[in-house]
Amino acid sequence: MLNKREIQNQIIQTVKKVKESNPMAGSITNTVTVNFVANAQLAVGGSAAMVYLPDEGEFLAKTGGATYINVGTLLPIYEETLPRTAKILHNLKKPWVLDPVAIGIGALRTQLLKQFKEYRPSIIRGNASEIIALAGLWDLNGGTDDSQVRGVDSTESVQAAQGAAISLAKWTEGAVAVSGKTDLVTDGTIVAYSHGGSDFMEKVTGCGCSLGGVAAVYATAATPFIAALTATSVYNLAGKRAEQSVSAPGSFQVAFIDELYLATPEAIANNAFEIVEALV
Amino acid sequence: MLNKREIQNQIIQTVKKVKESNPMAGSITNTVTVNFVANAQLAVGGSAAMVYLPDEGEFLAKTGGATYINVGTLLPIYEETLPRTAKILHNLKKPWVLDPVAIGIGALRTQLLKQFKEYRPSIIRGNASEIIALAGLWDLNGGTDDSQVRGVDSTESVQAAQGAAISLAKWTEGAVAVSGKTDLVTDGTIVAYSHGGSDFMEKVTGCGCSLGGVAAVYATAATPFIAALTATSVYNLAGKRAEQSVSAPGSFQVAFIDELYLATPEAIANNAFEIVEALV
Amino acid sequence: MLNKREIQNQIIQTVKKVKESNPMAGSITNTVTVNFVANAQLAVGGSAAMVYLPDEGEFLAKTGGATYINVGTLLPIYEETLPRTAKILHNLKKPWVLDPVAIGIGALRTQLLKQFKEYRPSIIRGNASEIIALAGLWDLNGGTDDSQVRGVDSTESVQAAQGAAISLAKWTEGAVAVSGKTDLVTDGTIVAYSHGGSDFMEKVTGCGCSLGGVAAVYATAATPFIAALTATSVYNLAGKRAEQSVSAPGSFQVAFIDELYLATPEAIANNAFEIVEALV
Repeated sequence: MLNKREIQNQIIQTVKKVKESNPMAGSITNTVTVNFVANAQLAVGGSAAMVYLPDEGEFLAKTGGATYINVGTLLPIYEETLPRTAKILHNLKKPWVLDPVAIGIGALRTQLLKQFKEYRPSIIRGNASEIIALAGLWDLNGGTDDSQVRGVDSTESVQAAQGAAISLAKWTEGAVAVSGKTDLVTDGTIVAYSHGGSDFMEKVTGCGCSLGGVAAVYATAATPFIAALTATSVYNLAGKRAEQSVSAPGSFQVAFIDELYLATPEAIANNAFEIVEALV
Repeated sequence: MLNKREIQNQIIQTVKKVKESNPMAGSITNTVTVNFVANAQLAVGGSAAMVYLPDEGEFLAKTGGATYINVGTLLPIYEETLPRTAKILHNLKKPWVLDPVAIGIGALRTQLLKQFKEYRPSIIRGNASEIIALAGLWDLNGGTDDSQVRGVDSTESVQAAQGAAISLAKWTEGAVAVSGKTDLVTDGTIVAYSHGGSDFMEKVTGCGCSLGGVAAVYATAATPFIAALTATSVYNLAGKRAEQSVSAPGSFQVAFIDELYLATPEAIANNAFEIVEALV
Repeated sequence: MLNKREIQNQIIQTVKKVKESNPMAGSITNTVTVNFVANAQLAVGGSAAMVYLPDEGEFLAKTGGATYINVGTLLPIYEETLPRTAKILHNLKKPWVLDPVAIGIGALRTQLLKQFKEYRPSIIRGNASEIIALAGLWDLNGGTDDSQVRGVDSTESVQAAQGAAISLAKWTEGAVAVSGKTDLVTDGTIVAYSHGGSDFMEKVTGCGCSLGGVAAVYATAATPFIAALTATSVYNLAGKRAEQSVSAPGSFQVAFIDELYLATPEAIANNAFEIVEALV
């Protein structure tokens, strides 16, 4: 098991490598927060491209360093686009991030999320309710069939999703990041708890989606676990810093993007977190 | 007829209830301003979720406290999604807000807006040209068949739309909000004129759309008339306050979201308005 | 050939006319940056409307003063919408701006961009790689078949695209604007090099797209060359000014929109540029 110092060193290397190499991470993501996703990816040093059509998803999967798939605002064409893109990613062993937002709403979303089980996303990012529901949908331990998702919000605590997160990470052999007051990142072996952030992150739409997009940027340069923890750490750092200068969510979002850009590798690695062994 | 004091008390109760209960108001809305709609809904204390597909629209209609439908950037699937969603809302007597943006452009928009007549939206929000055109499309008094809508802008004054607004409100047994220099809100019996706002609101896309989304949030906790007037009041208050600290529209939008968030129930209720009996 | 003083006078007249007449320039553009496009168009004094459906594209083409078409996030319906809209624009001799973003990704994009050759866009705006690739796709001098486009980013210098830009402008009898460190605008006879801007413009998604939308606004009031140069000049001016007060891209975007709004006709005309004869 990696110790904390080793993890911090890997975070530093990941952030540096991204800032130096400007890696491309394509996205198929919802229209509500797509602009925030792209700007967050640019702020941390990555490059962004968004598409909707099947062959364009395949193109980004093949040529990008990693891909972000968010099922937020599904269009009819996604029935083709998402499985074809995920299949390429899986076959080429390219890292990809799945955001199962609003799992439970609508037949196509359920169908797509079921299909993704075999394509094993490298990183799964969601709130506690979404992670529990996805484990349930994939018949894994810690999941429930009847988890109640309320639109895009969580009704469960991060702690309640720990078992589901570990099961999902073991299945994918990747990492799972659960967003909440304290964030949880696991690869099925280690669990990291990351601290910081701001209550304003609940008042600005897309903090979760853009975290997924940033995780994809870091996944071009690190293991899924390090990528997910690096993204979570820079989000918690930027949120904590941004709220110090503002009193409301409009200003917060502007300051937050600024802080994503300004965060140094060392500051990101030093953002508070602790690690424990994953027990199931 | 409610007097001004009673209206103000209801505004206060509505704002408080929303801030306490964080109600979900789903939306099917245009991609230009969808992010602004969501962030405005969050800023006033609501919760947001946006979808495009028919069964997802039906899901939000059933589970949300109210729904916002904006016909701004129609997609082909909306031919199914919008009537099915509106039908559920009508059958379940759930409040919903219609924004007939750009009425008159394209065959599908006209077809959908005609269909909505029988589903009687609880609140209709638009600029003067849109309200007059919708009354015309629905063969109601005060409307005209040949009202000239210029893209998304109004070519008519709010005053010119008063008859159409009253007719629409009587038909729906809900409320109509007409946006302009002075805003008008009516339930067909009372007409309220709400003051404030800022010229910068014409220079930032989505002030109208997001007002509709916020009206949906308040409609989870109040009558259509009170919900529409509360939304209009907080917009006029936030606009007036935001423009005091800025000199251009980029900064204005940030400050505006901040002021939506910071506005207290009492300040919203005390934003200048007067009421008169609706005469037709 | 126009001299610099004459060009500056035309820029001043164009900016003034737009601020006075609030012209409508409709768009069919990508969902990532559509909000930025609209707000930039409003900031310079124009009016915006965005659509996706074929008959709505035709409506905007017929009624707007100019139209902006950006192929960024294609939807299946665009196979009908874009050629039908471009055909109307060409037949009515209405100015329109083409942004061939991400040329080379996907079969539909290639098909549409090929079709646009006969509809001769008044202004083509892109980065160097896109301009070279479009000239190649249209079998014009200076283009290459195998130009490597990396998602939405350029891998070529503006200078390398000069031949392609001149060829495209001669073919369309319009203008071409190539975005880069120094921007290039040509009508096939004159080449203008425009200076200013900010490195932060690479860190905010949509600076290119919104420049295209603003060029469409100015194209309602000027020749393609003057419209493209006016748009490029206000972007370079606003970028240079915006970066003086900020240290990160979140604040930069807000300040940038502010500076677009605050820029006077004279300041835009005086933004540094030089002109040379186009040599091919």
